[in-house]
Amino acid sequence: MSHDKNKKMTEQKFDFGIIGLGTMGRNLVFNMNDHGYNVIGFDKNNSQVELLNKEAGDPTIRGTSKLKEFVNGLKKPRVILLLVPAGKVVDEVINELKPVLSENDLLMDCGNSHFTDTNERIDELAKSKIHFMGVGISGGESGARYGPSIMPGGAKSVYERVSTMLESISAKVNNEPCVTWLGPGSTGHYVKMVHNGIEYGLMQLIAETYHLLKKAGGFNNDELHKIYSIWNEGIVQSFLIEITADIFKQNDELTKNRLIDMILDSAQQKGTGGWTSEDGMKLQVPLPVIDIAVSMRDLSVYKIERQAAELKLTNEEIKFSGNKNELVGWLEQALYFSMITTYAQGMELLNRASQAYKYDLKLADIAKIWRGGCIIRSFLLEDIGLAFTQQPNLSNLLLSDLFSTKLIHSQIGIRKVIQIGVETGIPLPAMMGSLAYYDSYCSGWLPANLIQAQRDYFGAHTYKRNDKEGVFHTHWNQRK
Amino acid sequence: MSHDKNKKMTEQKFDFGIIGLGTMGRNLVFNMNDHGYNVIGFDKNNSQVELLNKEAGDPTIRGTSKLKEFVNGLKKPRVILLLVPAGKVVDEVINELKPVLSENDLLMDCGNSHFTDTNERIDELAKSKIHFMGVGISGGESGARYGPSIMPGGAKSVYERVSTMLESISAKVNNEPCVTWLGPGSTGHYVKMVHNGIEYGLMQLIAETYHLLKKAGGFNNDELHKIYSIWNEGIVQSFLIEITADIFKQNDELTKNRLIDMILDSAQQKGTGGWTSEDGMKLQVPLPVIDIAVSMRDLSVYKIERQAAELKLTNEEIKFSGNKNELVGWLEQALYFSMITTYAQGMELLNRASQAYKYDLKLADIAKIWRGGCIIRSFLLEDIGLAFTQQPNLSNLLLSDLFSTKLIHSQIGIRKVIQIGVETGIPLPAMMGSLAYYDSYCSGWLPANLIQAQRDYFGAHTYKRNDKEGVFHTHWNQRK
Repeated sequence: MSHDKNKKMTEQKFDFGIIGLGTMGRNLVFNMNDHGYNVIGFDKNNSQVELLNKEAGDPTIRGTSKLKEFVNGLKKPRVILLLVPAGKVVDEVINELKPVLSENDLLMDCGNSHFTDTNERIDELAKSKIHFMGVGISGGESGARYGPSIMPGGAKSVYERVSTMLESISAKVNNEPCVTWLGPGSTGHYVKMVHNGIEYGLMQLIAETYHLLKKAGGFNNDELHKIYSIWNEGIVQSFLIEITADIFKQNDELTKNRLIDMILDSAQQKGTGGWTSEDGMKLQVPLPVIDIAVSMRDLSVYKIERQAAELKLTNEEIKFSGNKNELVGWLEQALYFSMITTYAQGMELLNRASQAYKYDLKLADIAKIWRGGCIIRSFLLEDIGLAFTQQPNLSNLLLSDLFSTKLIHSQIGIRKVIQIGVETGIPLPAMMGSLAYYDSYCSGWLPANLIQAQRDYFGAHTYKRNDKEGVFHTHWNQRK
Repeated sequence: MSHDKNKKMTEQKFDFGIIGLGTMGRNLVFNMNDHGYNVIGFDKNNSQVELLNKEAGDPTIRGTSKLKEFVNGLKKPRVILLLVPAGKVVDEVINELKPVLSENDLLMDCGNSHFTDTNERIDELAKSKIHFMGVGISGGESGARYGPSIMPGGAKSVYERVSTMLESISAKVNNEPCVTWLGPGSTGHYVKMVHNGIEYGLMQLIAETYHLLKKAGGFNNDELHKIYSIWNEGIVQSFLIEITADIFKQNDELTKNRLIDMILDSAQQKGTGGWTSEDGMKLQVPLPVIDIAVSMRDLSVYKIERQAAELKLTNEEIKFSGNKNELVGWLEQALYFSMITTYAQGMELLNRASQAYKYDLKLADIAKIWRGGCIIRSFLLEDIGLAFTQQPNLSNLLLSDLFSTKLIHSQIGIRKVIQIGVETGIPLPAMMGSLAYYDSYCSGWLPANLIQAQRDYFGAHTYKRNDKEGVFHTHWNQRK
């Protein structure tokens, strides 16, 4: 590149800046550029910068590892998107930027920051009259490049400065962009956290169908590919089912096996699923499917202990002896049923968080922007959006007219499937959590009266009565 | 009380002071006094002070609402036990005490403080050369009065100042006191937190047996009293089963019904169960039974939603049609099985926390001091203590020689019970969590390879292989 060209580009002033030129950041640069924006990218790592500049080949995109060049290259007031790892890196970047930014500049944190950090950063930067938005982006590599689902939160007036750009780069469903302003403060990051919690739940549920099909059903990878491909045309149609079908087709380059069989069965995580569970605990919203999905990732890591326990404790393997086609049908119903209850748990958390944190969320909007681009996109979200449009104050999807018939019908499948799992010794923790949640939610009476009696017996914690108001304590007749 | 007597008592100097004269504090005063100690109690609330002084009737016990009198009445270096609600009250009390205490005085926080708060308070008070211990006490009212299980943590040299007193007031099992020094810093409060997490799990499990016996089995309260009384002579013998049997006998003073049927089925909580789950998430230790027990308390509070859902979603009630005696037998096995896995989860958390927080815990010691006085005391803890004595580095009870046969045998019961629950629509979330945990722990292979494949597919998160070291990423064949 000649010196002259360099100069021209810097003078040209870029519309947007991106800090962090990893996979997500680089793909977003090209996505924005596709929609007519000049974008400058910054990364401390020069190899990432070179990668961008090599692919760019056009002065409307430029990468640099010089912060001054980056900041000076941007139109004022500046808009900078951060695509850096959540945690202390975000603060480091903010601290480096603060002295060189101007009043009214806007930073958009597009990583998976914890929502409480986002609240603190908004307040801190407001002192320097710099705007800060927490923006959730889902869709992985491919979403970032061709259209993700975008979950922005922050001051509405600030969002309006970037709404046209965000709408242009987002995924579209029926020509509707998968982005909208969600609410003030940390709303965007909160919604993205719950999105990821639901993602953990759905992934665990799909893994359980795989476990049962493979171990009890004896299906091979080709058959599995076919089953998930067919499922992806039906009620459980979703991005995660689609890629699951693909995965069973993938060959390993190093051996002659299918790749799936060469991957170690220890799942990693980056923490957002656990954050969802933690906030559910805090807000006292039951999220059994998400909780167990997090726990199962943890347990999968104990490979050595599991192998030792298998030798010590397992009985002879019991195969499923019934009709295999029926098994597949029940499993599809079971998955559908448990997908509904998983979304229901996530939406209920959003509902309660909206009150607790004053987010004033529109759950129908959230369901709509999740229909395209993001990891949890699915056929079901159409109905979920509809349910919250019809009943905006719906406290739980289980109470929706739209879903009651579907649940009553598909519970037959999940009951069958769990019984098969129990018989064959194949663990189905998330499916079980799903059914237990449903059966508990549908129990006008639960045995919690015994728990209250016990608490009052041993700790004088008092209890309420079902026939009159007030708080009561009994001097229990203890045997001695 | 005459002025002279008052004066004499103050001069007499008391061995120990207790701040907070609620049920627990007052009962501890009398317990300590029974063992020959002179105890002065302080409470801001004068009615609590009067209650103590009325019951005392002896100059070796004295209550006061004057902090100065309290502090001056104590032998030096002072030892003061705090029996006040966890949270900011503890800090308020510390702040009031700090200016009037002397170097080398010792404060023992005997409430359910969060262990991280305890670490901070130890460090803060060390600056003023005041010692601080976090001490878990379990046993409720009656335990505090006649012998609780005591879980002290802090500097060992400081513990030795109070070990004789603590041993004298603690519960005894085979003449062994249910107290021992557990480790440095916040160890005591951590162990108490996990104790309470296990307590949540066991209470939920017992509630589920009640649900199934009442709703599917159709047993009435007299029959339930009998069942739990008989169980309390067998493998599930424990304090919580004992009081459950008592509870079904208790008559209501206001109606002619049994009290259990008049108690509202919405369970309260004070948070320690949730803290256990949160720390499990943080340390990546799966605790499905404890997690679901917390969630079920939360869900029980949604009474109105549950009643609405019951109307909307429930099918006709399905009764259990088999042999009722068999049902009771299977349930006892199921409870035994799930009690083991619940303790296993709690002990595993202690094991991992011991490494993470450098507590250097002796799990056999903990099992031993839990055998008497505390809420989770049970027959099982004898074997648990033995298991950790035989194998001090045992990572999980499921891998213990002592328990493998018991688990293999009793799993038959829990599989039966869950199948009955699934058929009859009676939710058994903790039992299910227990079995799913067991079946997962015993799975040398889990379908987490699919989760890793999905993560690599959509997010380039990489994966490990089962045939060679390293970290891999695949460019997956995406359909387009």
